[in-house]
Amino acid sequence: MSEFSGKSADATSSGSVSGIGEFGLISALRKRFQESGPDSQLDDELVIVGVGDDAAVVRTPDGCVAVSTDVLVTGVHFRTDWSPPYEIGRRAAAASLADIAAMGGRATALVVALSMPADQAVSWCLRLADGLRDEATLVGARVVGGDIARSRELSICVTALGDLAGRAPVTRAGAREGDVVAVCGRLGFAEAGLAVLSRGFRSPRALVAAYQHPEPPYAAGIAAARAGATAMCDVSDGLLADVGHIARESKVGIALRGASFERPEPLQAVAAAYGLDPMLWILTGGHDHALVATFSAGADLPAGFELIGEVVARDESIGEDSPVTVDGQAVSGTAFGGAGFSHFNAP
Amino acid sequence: MSEFSGKSADATSSGSVSGIGEFGLISALRKRFQESGPDSQLDDELVIVGVGDDAAVVRTPDGCVAVSTDVLVTGVHFRTDWSPPYEIGRRAAAASLADIAAMGGRATALVVALSMPADQAVSWCLRLADGLRDEATLVGARVVGGDIARSRELSICVTALGDLAGRAPVTRAGAREGDVVAVCGRLGFAEAGLAVLSRGFRSPRALVAAYQHPEPPYAAGIAAARAGATAMCDVSDGLLADVGHIARESKVGIALRGASFERPEPLQAVAAAYGLDPMLWILTGGHDHALVATFSAGADLPAGFELIGEVVARDESIGEDSPVTVDGQAVSGTAFGGAGFSHFNAP
Repeated sequence: MSEFSGKSADATSSGSVSGIGEFGLISALRKRFQESGPDSQLDDELVIVGVGDDAAVVRTPDGCVAVSTDVLVTGVHFRTDWSPPYEIGRRAAAASLADIAAMGGRATALVVALSMPADQAVSWCLRLADGLRDEATLVGARVVGGDIARSRELSICVTALGDLAGRAPVTRAGAREGDVVAVCGRLGFAEAGLAVLSRGFRSPRALVAAYQHPEPPYAAGIAAARAGATAMCDVSDGLLADVGHIARESKVGIALRGASFERPEPLQAVAAAYGLDPMLWILTGGHDHALVATFSAGADLPAGFELIGEVVARDESIGEDSPVTVDGQAVSGTAFGGAGFSHFNAP
Repeated sequence: MSEFSGKSADATSSGSVSGIGEFGLISALRKRFQESGPDSQLDDELVIVGVGDDAAVVRTPDGCVAVSTDVLVTGVHFRTDWSPPYEIGRRAAAASLADIAAMGGRATALVVALSMPADQAVSWCLRLADGLRDEATLVGARVVGGDIARSRELSICVTALGDLAGRAPVTRAGAREGDVVAVCGRLGFAEAGLAVLSRGFRSPRALVAAYQHPEPPYAAGIAAARAGATAMCDVSDGLLADVGHIARESKVGIALRGASFERPEPLQAVAAAYGLDPMLWILTGGHDHALVATFSAGADLPAGFELIGEVVARDESIGEDSPVTVDGQAVSGTAFGGAGFSHFNAP
């Protein structure tokens, strides 16, 4: 669709999107996506048709494909004054790439739909593209296509395709009573970083960076699948909400142990400064894209996974709303809304 | 991500999205997508993991997958006062499904990212879902996943996956000098319908309906691939722009014949009423998702395709901006901007 009707197809990085038009921008983005990112280990044999046609065509060696889509909206998932476009691109890609990892797969391709005002700077778009490409390159995936539309509000919709290499997908529905629950990756850092930025600060840098550019443990998803994970989910809604998804889909309860969680120094320091308990961020913070998985009790956990609890019988008396307990206490899984944590804090 | 923090997971069709929350809405949509639409010929063997996990998993019998994404933004691609949600859903799905057809494939699955204000009515979302599902069902595809985010502006991003059944994809790059150019499907109807609605009218109904709910000739894409189409594109930017894409990617020129185009009665009548030439809509109107393809000169055209011109050598003197001529006259391919048509009208 011709949402931008610019008259010149000459793509330059100065000026606005309306100046070079939709096709000019597509041409510039196409070049950007075809460049190699850092640590390039791309398997270009996978891409049969790339950017610039009606559809891309990607190989699926084992005869199936994992697919996940995530949309990030300005003012909700990112702010252009809090993150440079390169970091926003990495973050947008990470959200979808982590979903593929959470099925036990490796992402192979991304398609990206970008909605933005006509006065958006071309240079901003190109840096966003660099971020999308570089995050995809971390797992060997390519940006193979997309769409551009005019809108009042900036938003980025990234769809990832992934390869399961012949393994069964690790869904949310396979946890069984007696399994252990383990997590790999940071919890609460991004949420604490957001709290820091919301108060007008830029440090501690580790927290702000975690918000601007999460580092999902992509390889751990494949390792968990190989180690026989019975269920897995990426932590994007907050740990309580996401283990709640596993509990509900698997029709089990999940008992977490508060003492199992590390409370890293920067979280403790900032929480103390704001008069909060760092467990708020650890248990209900999203955006970090850690992986939470269940394994048979006897399984060797893959490197990086830490035990945080176990799968128990579903407590019918509590009902579907609260299948998760922390130290024996039922908690609601609602992230960010505060209900989860206040319930958790109740005597 | 928890963009809506509603406290009840009970999904009802009354009230707003913020009332039932993200997970309540996902639960309601999931049920909707699992119902069968009309003319159901679903091959559920294709879907290994459907709505409700980190990613969906879909079979790809021939070891590759076609993927295309399209985003529709309120006020740009649709207006909620001009189209009911069911029609918006069908239209959003059609945009992506037509892209798969334009590669010569059959769509198998859709994922849908929906961004919307917190006060959006749940009933509106469910009717949108019905439309998405029913349009997908036309080609035997399922909605297998998606994302929901809060935003100020309503937008719908649909990504389609498709199966090429072992055939090579029909790209935009394969047209050769001497090929014929043919089109299947309506041209200009949706654009004329938009012109009618823009002036505050609701008829002729055929044009308004064409805008609200295009009917891409899905089966014709597969038929064209089987008949050996050398290049193909769906007409979403306007015919001149879209044959321009084929010309540029194939490094050829395309010569169209004005007399080859039908000027259907409703287009003529409305154009006359507005003091316009119906060829404006036919040559530059988007949204109808007709298919334009090139075939070897001797090929039997599949049913529904009409000859409109031929592939010629690229005229280097004209340059890349205008590889398309109508009755020997160079035209710019810019859709909607007016430049294309005013140039075409020049003496």
